[in-house]
Amino acid sequence: MSPKSASSGVSRRALLSALAVLPALTGSVLPLPASAQTAAPGGALGSWNDGAAKQAILDFVRATTDRASPSFVAPEERIAVFDQDGTLWVEHPMYTQVVYCLDRVPAVVAQKPGLRDVEPFKTVLSGNRAAMAKLTMPDLEKILAATLTGMTTDEFNADVKKWIETARHPRWNRLYTELVFQPMIEVLRYLRDNGYKTYIVTGGGQDFVRVYAERVYGIPPEQIVGSVGGTKYGYGKDGKPFLTKEPKLLLNDDHAGKPEGIHMMIGRRPYAAFGNSIGDRQMLEWTAAGSGARLEMLVLHDDATREYAYGPAAGLPDTKLGTFTQALYDQAKKSNWTVISMKNDWKRIFAFE
Amino acid sequence: MSPKSASSGVSRRALLSALAVLPALTGSVLPLPASAQTAAPGGALGSWNDGAAKQAILDFVRATTDRASPSFVAPEERIAVFDQDGTLWVEHPMYTQVVYCLDRVPAVVAQKPGLRDVEPFKTVLSGNRAAMAKLTMPDLEKILAATLTGMTTDEFNADVKKWIETARHPRWNRLYTELVFQPMIEVLRYLRDNGYKTYIVTGGGQDFVRVYAERVYGIPPEQIVGSVGGTKYGYGKDGKPFLTKEPKLLLNDDHAGKPEGIHMMIGRRPYAAFGNSIGDRQMLEWTAAGSGARLEMLVLHDDATREYAYGPAAGLPDTKLGTFTQALYDQAKKSNWTVISMKNDWKRIFAFE
Repeated sequence: MSPKSASSGVSRRALLSALAVLPALTGSVLPLPASAQTAAPGGALGSWNDGAAKQAILDFVRATTDRASPSFVAPEERIAVFDQDGTLWVEHPMYTQVVYCLDRVPAVVAQKPGLRDVEPFKTVLSGNRAAMAKLTMPDLEKILAATLTGMTTDEFNADVKKWIETARHPRWNRLYTELVFQPMIEVLRYLRDNGYKTYIVTGGGQDFVRVYAERVYGIPPEQIVGSVGGTKYGYGKDGKPFLTKEPKLLLNDDHAGKPEGIHMMIGRRPYAAFGNSIGDRQMLEWTAAGSGARLEMLVLHDDATREYAYGPAAGLPDTKLGTFTQALYDQAKKSNWTVISMKNDWKRIFAFE
Repeated sequence: MSPKSASSGVSRRALLSALAVLPALTGSVLPLPASAQTAAPGGALGSWNDGAAKQAILDFVRATTDRASPSFVAPEERIAVFDQDGTLWVEHPMYTQVVYCLDRVPAVVAQKPGLRDVEPFKTVLSGNRAAMAKLTMPDLEKILAATLTGMTTDEFNADVKKWIETARHPRWNRLYTELVFQPMIEVLRYLRDNGYKTYIVTGGGQDFVRVYAERVYGIPPEQIVGSVGGTKYGYGKDGKPFLTKEPKLLLNDDHAGKPEGIHMMIGRRPYAAFGNSIGDRQMLEWTAAGSGARLEMLVLHDDATREYAYGPAAGLPDTKLGTFTQALYDQAKKSNWTVISMKNDWKRIFAFE
């Protein structure tokens, strides 16, 4: 994967301003809860308050699955796509995958001791948050390239699996996989119960998300579309073949890359699309441009008490992580896309509440 | 898509030596039969003779789907991959997609009249088979680039759909989609009936195969892995977004590209793989390298009467289209991959027999 890939859509400032609140690099090792997916009380969308957003979901499903509806959609055509960071789980103060990359630096340096005194690795190893906050975008790209490529796909999967089962979010001291939005888990299930195939379409690394998506979201690896790095087929000394992750970006699955990735990986236009930032705009446009009933929804982070408030809700500048810009807000209004207010539409945000 | 993509694995000689037997460029317009998939008589694998090949399929399915079996595979892990050309349908005298590209030259020249007197388009337009047989590989690549890129994905899909519903194979005067191997259609269905997700993994263009694969093979677009060209997102004058097919190769899905493509598009190692040529070798190796019961099968074209005989069966040189080389044959023997003899293992080859 090119160094750029994993950082697509991430502003340097947003990444680095968050470093100060991160815990030490070594993850804690508390036991993993059985599952972040708790059954929804009160029906299919039990964590949703009644309102326009919940109603839009119910109306869409009825319109596309009732055989008597003029907007009926054949089961094999039922595709729904979901951004991940900020749409299905918490993206603040930093994308989870970037935290993984920083946490992985010591292991990379242990294998390549020559990097110990080389920047930016030296700074990351120092644990000096003030110094880390000054890392440049090229610095970060070096870190992503060093930590996401060069190993076999099996090695990478095993390492991510181990990390994601122990690493914790600094604010809640909970596993990242516990910080999925319960109302969205209910939407995923509700759509699947109505014959929809649910996909994640993320700017993050496809291989990274695949490691935990089946367990956490009920979405299998073949339904994860993300930024894609090339792999290279080779043979071990025992003659067994393996794939090595290469520093070569095949798809930057963000912005225009999202509809391009949907075409490449799915080959059908989605009927429903969920996002939360400018990186999701083209995916929603592409979905909306189809005929018949389509559903486009944007999660607005306007709940600083229970989660975070950013974007137009908080008057934050457009350079902020996962930006829900005023322009996107205006486009949503004009295009009749539905904006989900976390504060008003969600009865609870996390399963553990 | 790069000019190279659609021609991956195709030797120039094989392509061109076949030109002489092709019909005129304009396809005939006889009505399309309801479906090339006819119900199999005599049970799930009714077109198979009893023998080692049929037994290998039955044994594999039993071993991986019987809960009491030590090789039981969870339903979500059941992935089976199939090469297309020469494995699921006839690949002689020329890959069907290459015939499409040649047929499309007049339409391309009509849109870009400047190409009329430019080689290689001039030669293709002349219909002079002897001259066409002398086209070089770079000539062919120009033809593939001109006919497979530059249009929107919707335009491409509509054009292929129209062509595939009328174009006919010169030997049988049947639609190409009627020239699917009935025993393989039965294997696809039998595996699906046992919880397997069936994928095509082809060196041909992913977008091309997706147009007809659901109707012909029962395999949806999202389960077609092929050579992938980039697309570019843009907006029409009406503000509607569209994707344009670009002359940029993202994945050459042949040889080592097959396991690489499987990783990219599926993200799981298959339990069963079917191929017929050296381009499928790495896909079979990758499948075989997994633990538990795995099935690797190669279709040997040894029936000149009912279809064609080539590869070791016919003593043809390794440069021949869809080559089943002696080296592949030896590797199959050594690795306990099962070779399917079309002549001996298949009771009938086509549904129309």
